[in-house]
Amino acid sequence: MKIALDAMGGDFAPQAAVDGAVLAAQLLAGKAQIVLIGQENAVRPLLEAHGAAAENLTLVPASQIIEMGEHPAKAYQQKQDSSIAVGYRLLATGEVEAFCSAGNTGAMLVGAMFSVKAVPGVMRPAIANFVPKLHGGMGIMLDVGANAECKPEMLEQFGELGSLYAHYVLGIAQPKVGLMNLGEEEGKGTAITQAAHQLLKVNPHIHFIGNIEGRDLFNDKADVVVCDGFTGNVLLKMAESVYDIMAEKNMHDPFFDHFNYESIGGSPILGINDNAIIGHGVSTPTAICNMLLQGYQMASSGIADQIKSTFKS
Amino acid sequence: MKIALDAMGGDFAPQAAVDGAVLAAQLLAGKAQIVLIGQENAVRPLLEAHGAAAENLTLVPASQIIEMGEHPAKAYQQKQDSSIAVGYRLLATGEVEAFCSAGNTGAMLVGAMFSVKAVPGVMRPAIANFVPKLHGGMGIMLDVGANAECKPEMLEQFGELGSLYAHYVLGIAQPKVGLMNLGEEEGKGTAITQAAHQLLKVNPHIHFIGNIEGRDLFNDKADVVVCDGFTGNVLLKMAESVYDIMAEKNMHDPFFDHFNYESIGGSPILGINDNAIIGHGVSTPTAICNMLLQGYQMASSGIADQIKSTFKS
Repeated sequence: MKIALDAMGGDFAPQAAVDGAVLAAQLLAGKAQIVLIGQENAVRPLLEAHGAAAENLTLVPASQIIEMGEHPAKAYQQKQDSSIAVGYRLLATGEVEAFCSAGNTGAMLVGAMFSVKAVPGVMRPAIANFVPKLHGGMGIMLDVGANAECKPEMLEQFGELGSLYAHYVLGIAQPKVGLMNLGEEEGKGTAITQAAHQLLKVNPHIHFIGNIEGRDLFNDKADVVVCDGFTGNVLLKMAESVYDIMAEKNMHDPFFDHFNYESIGGSPILGINDNAIIGHGVSTPTAICNMLLQGYQMASSGIADQIKSTFKS
Repeated sequence: MKIALDAMGGDFAPQAAVDGAVLAAQLLAGKAQIVLIGQENAVRPLLEAHGAAAENLTLVPASQIIEMGEHPAKAYQQKQDSSIAVGYRLLATGEVEAFCSAGNTGAMLVGAMFSVKAVPGVMRPAIANFVPKLHGGMGIMLDVGANAECKPEMLEQFGELGSLYAHYVLGIAQPKVGLMNLGEEEGKGTAITQAAHQLLKVNPHIHFIGNIEGRDLFNDKADVVVCDGFTGNVLLKMAESVYDIMAEKNMHDPFFDHFNYESIGGSPILGINDNAIIGHGVSTPTAICNMLLQGYQMASSGIADQIKSTFKS
């Protein structure tokens, strides 16, 4: 199995990317190979500095870089030899089983739609993020930013996508799906969440437990938290800031440490025909390593095929 | 000056309400009187138990109670001798300068609209909540639940209402107004936040600093955080759960302790012709006391008149 990494993506690339890739390659030795994608003259010397430790890695050259500030769609189309475009080509042709990048989020989304494409039947793929649970384990929340505006049917599909991920990747037997809302009662919320509630309630593929509130994000009510990308993004960034404030204050706790993006690595794009993960712009080697391990887990679980067969029917 | 309290509102009423009112009456001695509203046979004995400490309090009888689970509009109209309905009558007739309740939130909103009414020109009043700032001081966020769905013009008005409150009640010279969004760039967000951004940008009454993200809630970028009631409610409840989790883990810190609703007391309804504050259902005596002090501060500041004169023009 091969897991690809955009060596040029992230604020500390290529150094952090290469260091993280070397860590992951050691942990995955015998199970998967890491494929680095990037400018040869920048990446090769960093790899060589790792000596024998870098044995489980290969390098695929890509001459261009999509910068963080660039317009995603324009940059993706114009820079066909960028590390992101090359990464998606390797993914689409089956040369790698997962592609990870801490680079331009928008370009990662655009690339997913242009190359590996949305699963037929999925209206709009979503970005999922892990949510640490107070009493142990992880849940996921989606969407966290791909779709600021959502139709009720999209929210329903997010419930299905999240449920499949929670089952096949997180190993939760019957994931509980909750709809983020401003009240528990069925009639609460916007016209969209009210309609989504009705769709989720009768969906036979998921175990819908009803509306949940902001205070339920970290408890055990739901394993899968369904929300539009606006709400999810705002919640996610607020949670990250809580971790940053606690770190600044030197407050440490195993639960709150999970708020650190580093411990998780990246956010999978769900609803596309293959495995793609978006990392945080400020990714450290630890974050990069965890993103690659997550890519390996996704690929091993066969989640993309599970999604395809569910939405085919 | 007289500040009224619904003695029957909240999960621990009337005991917590009376105890909190006695605390506030002592702190406000010589400046304001507390008017308790509720069932005489339930409240009088509790007051008498406080002896001389209860001197600065008067009791206005109200025979009915609107329960937490009741339909707000229906209950408010049918129970005209409820503590909430009597409280709003006292407010509307000018017998008290502020009315506070930890009871049924919906009934408090309905009562505000039926009795003291929205300020002419204000499309929809909003519920505001305080936001502790990491480097000291407080900001406010609105709406946090009165309006799940908002037009761009409503969000613009929330910016004005919040700015007036931050100036006249919190004493911030030129409050910075930020629009909660999923990205800093002007074009980010939903069609509604994009349109609201354009309106806020050219509004001459406020100091708009642009979009802010979830991670900016606690920093100094904005004193006034504008959002729809859905987003605000979810964020607020999530922040409260962070405090609860930390308290459970016995983690204490002056900044995070401000996440405790108790330290703030209540959420003002802004955009109505008078001063009304909604408290948390689980309000303790400390929370009730702080809500009454906040009512005193609002009434003293003349904020309602400032809002009226701003929206008249």
